[in-house]
Amino acid sequence: MVVLTGEMILEFLETLENHIRELRTSIDMESVGKLIESIVSSRSIFIMGAGRSGFVAKSFAMRLMHLGYNVYVVGETTTPKIKKDDLLITISGSGETSSVVNITMKAKSMVGSKIAVITSSPNSSLAKMSDVVVVIKGKVKTEKDDRISKLAPLGTMFELTSMIFLDALVAELLNIKGLTEDNLKEKHAILE
Amino acid sequence: MVVLTGEMILEFLETLENHIRELRTSIDMESVGKLIESIVSSRSIFIMGAGRSGFVAKSFAMRLMHLGYNVYVVGETTTPKIKKDDLLITISGSGETSSVVNITMKAKSMVGSKIAVITSSPNSSLAKMSDVVVVIKGKVKTEKDDRISKLAPLGTMFELTSMIFLDALVAELLNIKGLTEDNLKEKHAILE
Amino acid sequence: MVVLTGEMILEFLETLENHIRELRTSIDMESVGKLIESIVSSRSIFIMGAGRSGFVAKSFAMRLMHLGYNVYVVGETTTPKIKKDDLLITISGSGETSSVVNITMKAKSMVGSKIAVITSSPNSSLAKMSDVVVVIKGKVKTEKDDRISKLAPLGTMFELTSMIFLDALVAELLNIKGLTEDNLKEKHAILE
Amino acid sequence: MVVLTGEMILEFLETLENHIRELRTSIDMESVGKLIESIVSSRSIFIMGAGRSGFVAKSFAMRLMHLGYNVYVVGETTTPKIKKDDLLITISGSGETSSVVNITMKAKSMVGSKIAVITSSPNSSLAKMSDVVVVIKGKVKTEKDDRISKLAPLGTMFELTSMIFLDALVAELLNIKGLTEDNLKEKHAILE
Repeated sequence: MVVLTGEMILEFLETLENHIRELRTSIDMESVGKLIESIVSSRSIFIMGAGRSGFVAKSFAMRLMHLGYNVYVVGETTTPKIKKDDLLITISGSGETSSVVNITMKAKSMVGSKIAVITSSPNSSLAKMSDVVVVIKGKVKTEKDDRISKLAPLGTMFELTSMIFLDALVAELLNIKGLTEDNLKEKHAILE
Repeated sequence: MVVLTGEMILEFLETLENHIRELRTSIDMESVGKLIESIVSSRSIFIMGAGRSGFVAKSFAMRLMHLGYNVYVVGETTTPKIKKDDLLITISGSGETSSVVNITMKAKSMVGSKIAVITSSPNSSLAKMSDVVVVIKGKVKTEKDDRISKLAPLGTMFELTSMIFLDALVAELLNIKGLTEDNLKEKHAILE
Repeated sequence: MVVLTGEMILEFLETLENHIRELRTSIDMESVGKLIESIVSSRSIFIMGAGRSGFVAKSFAMRLMHLGYNVYVVGETTTPKIKKDDLLITISGSGETSSVVNITMKAKSMVGSKIAVITSSPNSSLAKMSDVVVVIKGKVKTEKDDRISKLAPLGTMFELTSMIFLDALVAELLNIKGLTEDNLKEKHAILE
Repeated sequence: MVVLTGEMILEFLETLENHIRELRTSIDMESVGKLIESIVSSRSIFIMGAGRSGFVAKSFAMRLMHLGYNVYVVGETTTPKIKKDDLLITISGSGETSSVVNITMKAKSMVGSKIAVITSSPNSSLAKMSDVVVVIKGKVKTEKDDRISKLAPLGTMFELTSMIFLDALVAELLNIKGLTEDNLKEKHAILE
């Protein structure tokens, strides 16, 4: 029988609470404004990320679909060719995930699509090749920090914080478009 | 040009902060203890969820793999047959998602596997057929609440809170197993 | 060192060759005509299958996208709600795969979408609830046949034959639409 | 009403029949023997492909799991780090698909894993960096051939032929391991 004090769970939750408070007071609304502008003005939106950042990317893509945007996940079955008027949003804490970097380079050089990145690393390869850079703090996989390593190993802090930020962005987009929850339900898949 | 006050973003983040504080003070450590016991004592762990809860499920499954568990996502390519000594963990806010209910019924009746559910709905079909029920509060898709509907439509609040809770659980499991971040890196896919 | 006569490989290929010849001489063009008519007249096309039949479904969905159809795979991230004017195409050898049966029932009863099935089993649950039934012979998982069991176990014969049939259908659709390979390239994802 | 002669369907099936006959008489059993040897002697097998070749890869991976091998699809949720004693099998008609080339380079240079490729292009980048090369003829996406372009556009011929070849390989592996269909059923997922 596991005797559970739940000490790590409580410490994790407290740490995350503080992390969200910090995000709230430090978020750069100018870059967020540019991201929103890119989203509302693009013909189609393509989204990608690898590993757990890929699941964050997919969660955001699903909500953009509910909001009525023309949105695709890179690598899914019926995702078409990206075009010049389209936006590619990438999610990568380190900004160096090789598959994401390679594909972003292709979208930029072969097609000339607009590129946005959600990342912890403003000086990364992905940040350098992106038109819009939204920085979300979070210990990234390559950094070292003993306490955080034990609570939120690898990219956990970035993944959670970017997932939360993107759902906050959905609230903002919902408001901008003047939509209600019922409009979203109209789009929500029922075959699940 | 979008003039962004970011009001909804900030309100969303504050709401989530309060929601996490509430989770921290109200979480039922006895059911969490049972979930941990089931995880550490099972031969293999199978995980499933639909839609955005499915991405939460996959994010957790990936970390369990990093922790050294024998873990599979229901529906992925090389997931084998579930057996009697295995644990099926489902994630569903409403506890009524039909594909998840149907598959859980099969695992229970045809195989006799142990079932655990992360849900907002302690009286749901999934909760009733599960051996372990961890309740994570969060407006679920079928509830109504005007302010929350505009900030966190559909299952957003449950999805975020269960993702956060499961990463807190990973911190606890890391501690129980006496593992460090470096042990996790040993398992982390590099082909991405 | 494995000494490979390749006897089973050669026998498998010969068996498949005969199987395709049989398909060619026995295929019911009336039901195929109805399937084509449903495809060309629907607003959107939704496709699904489980296991290896699911990969056949996705391969076909990708080509329909290349052909310019508005097509979605059930369960993928940005797949919207199915509507009355839409077509659901299911692929199931036995016609009894429970997740596919359950979802088809929902699309039929809750929405009233048109249903088509590619199956080996004209008397199955899926065949009975479908408006269009295309029968593709192939030992299905529940049948018994010793020689075939050793060469093409489980649903192999159905999966291969339905994959081949659906690519033959693509050739027909390409001709009907008067498209060339270059038109398809225009749609083919480059971000891969 | 579509008046369907089915001419293209029948021509497609006849073409494929001839293509399989050609495969049967021309297949290089020495390279196939090396592939089998790599499969049976590796600790774990990792499989990857992009687009429709990716679905061929997954179909094969599922059968290797049924056969009892320790097998993973690159990019799926619980796929661990590849190691030196592992085998990476890639499927690519052109042998130049950039994501597959990049990942294979990583597996080779960073880990030293064994590499095998199923391809139409014996002089491609992937063929050059692979220890085992199995050539499967099929018009690849970059070739030109008018009649085939209309019947089997893009990579269709390679995708179908490699899917068929890999199922023939499964028959051979089933025989080598002395397994029956019932052994495979023991592994086949029931949660679908």
